[in-house]
Amino acid sequence: MRVLGVLGGMGPAATVAFLARVQALTPATGDQDHIRMLVDINPQVPDRNRAPQAADDMLGEMAARLREAGAQILAMPCNTAHAQSTGLRGIGLPFIDMIAETTAVATEGEVKKVGVLATPGGEALYTAALSSNGAKIVRLVGANRQAFTACIAAVKRGDTGKAPRAEMRRLAAALVASGAERVIAGCTEVPLLLGPKDVSVPLIDSADVLARACVKACR
Amino acid sequence: MRVLGVLGGMGPAATVAFLARVQALTPATGDQDHIRMLVDINPQVPDRNRAPQAADDMLGEMAARLREAGAQILAMPCNTAHAQSTGLRGIGLPFIDMIAETTAVATEGEVKKVGVLATPGGEALYTAALSSNGAKIVRLVGANRQAFTACIAAVKRGDTGKAPRAEMRRLAAALVASGAERVIAGCTEVPLLLGPKDVSVPLIDSADVLARACVKACR
Repeated sequence: MRVLGVLGGMGPAATVAFLARVQALTPATGDQDHIRMLVDINPQVPDRNRAPQAADDMLGEMAARLREAGAQILAMPCNTAHAQSTGLRGIGLPFIDMIAETTAVATEGEVKKVGVLATPGGEALYTAALSSNGAKIVRLVGANRQAFTACIAAVKRGDTGKAPRAEMRRLAAALVASGAERVIAGCTEVPLLLGPKDVSVPLIDSADVLARACVKACR
Repeated sequence: MRVLGVLGGMGPAATVAFLARVQALTPATGDQDHIRMLVDINPQVPDRNRAPQAADDMLGEMAARLREAGAQILAMPCNTAHAQSTGLRGIGLPFIDMIAETTAVATEGEVKKVGVLATPGGEALYTAALSSNGAKIVRLVGANRQAFTACIAAVKRGDTGKAPRAEMRRLAAALVASGAERVIAGCTEVPLLLGPKDVSVPLIDSADVLARACVKACR
């Protein structure tokens, strides 16, 4: 087994949900069967939208420290932060790319239009990745963009109640109404509000895809 | 704010539940308000009962690596492993002692008999700590000792269903029937099966006590 290094804290609750997902996906009859994870839950990573270079530098430093502590493979359960991954990709460890893994799963078969629930930064990454895989993005527009940001902010202040859940269901439905054949939960806060049963087309949860890839890579 | 180093993996699910508890107990309106946590979820720590010295050495190494990675305060959400804490106590960082913190809370007021749901190793630590605080331990005896071990093993293989929950309720009730005025959930797997409403006397959850102490120490 290999040691998984996790760059986390963006946000904190999403990271813990990701760790639980990795454990749930690991076949285990006792402690020893589980993957060792070295995790930096750092909620003070500079804002990825406002200070991208500072965030990139910080993530590179975090990755180097995880490597020194014994990590052998890296993963980062935050879609948006993948735009600031130059530093961490340069430290000499394999990095499991959440955007690439999720896009590969979302475009399996004959899929032309894929809805994406993500921040503007995450949306840009998925637009490029989907395009490389021959698919087009269906994105949130107008007031729905602000509504999405408000839902994510709710999770980050600890609110995963009925109101943000209903709102996230509505946003997913808007993507489907615009032609999305599948919807990517492309922000790790999304699955804390939205499950597969809440969407009328297949929901591809980026955190779940990444967790599966990590279990496969480490065991 | 100070960086919390967490020695985890004993067991894995209990560690993740502990991290979620720390976050839930932290007043936050956004990511930045949360505590940074450097976490080693190491499910391969040698068996604390069968190879205590090897476990002690490994925990000391883990603590030193967390210190190198930036941890400023240490905590270990595993009661049993506190018997193997010589190494980690020697690395020069403050260590929040889960047994001491929990015993202090459990013996507040005029309490003479405290029930403990713990492994044999954890029980020994609580026996000494309670005695120092002027209280006596009420422990699981006979077949209930094996029943407890079976419950913990169930959690470790991912089973937190009705059967182990009912069994853990029965074990807590047995301690109360033997005179316990309070019951300590003295193994971090216990709260995954048992809540305050399941016990007729106050339940002192060691994971909750430790999480509160960590939030207080780091903020």
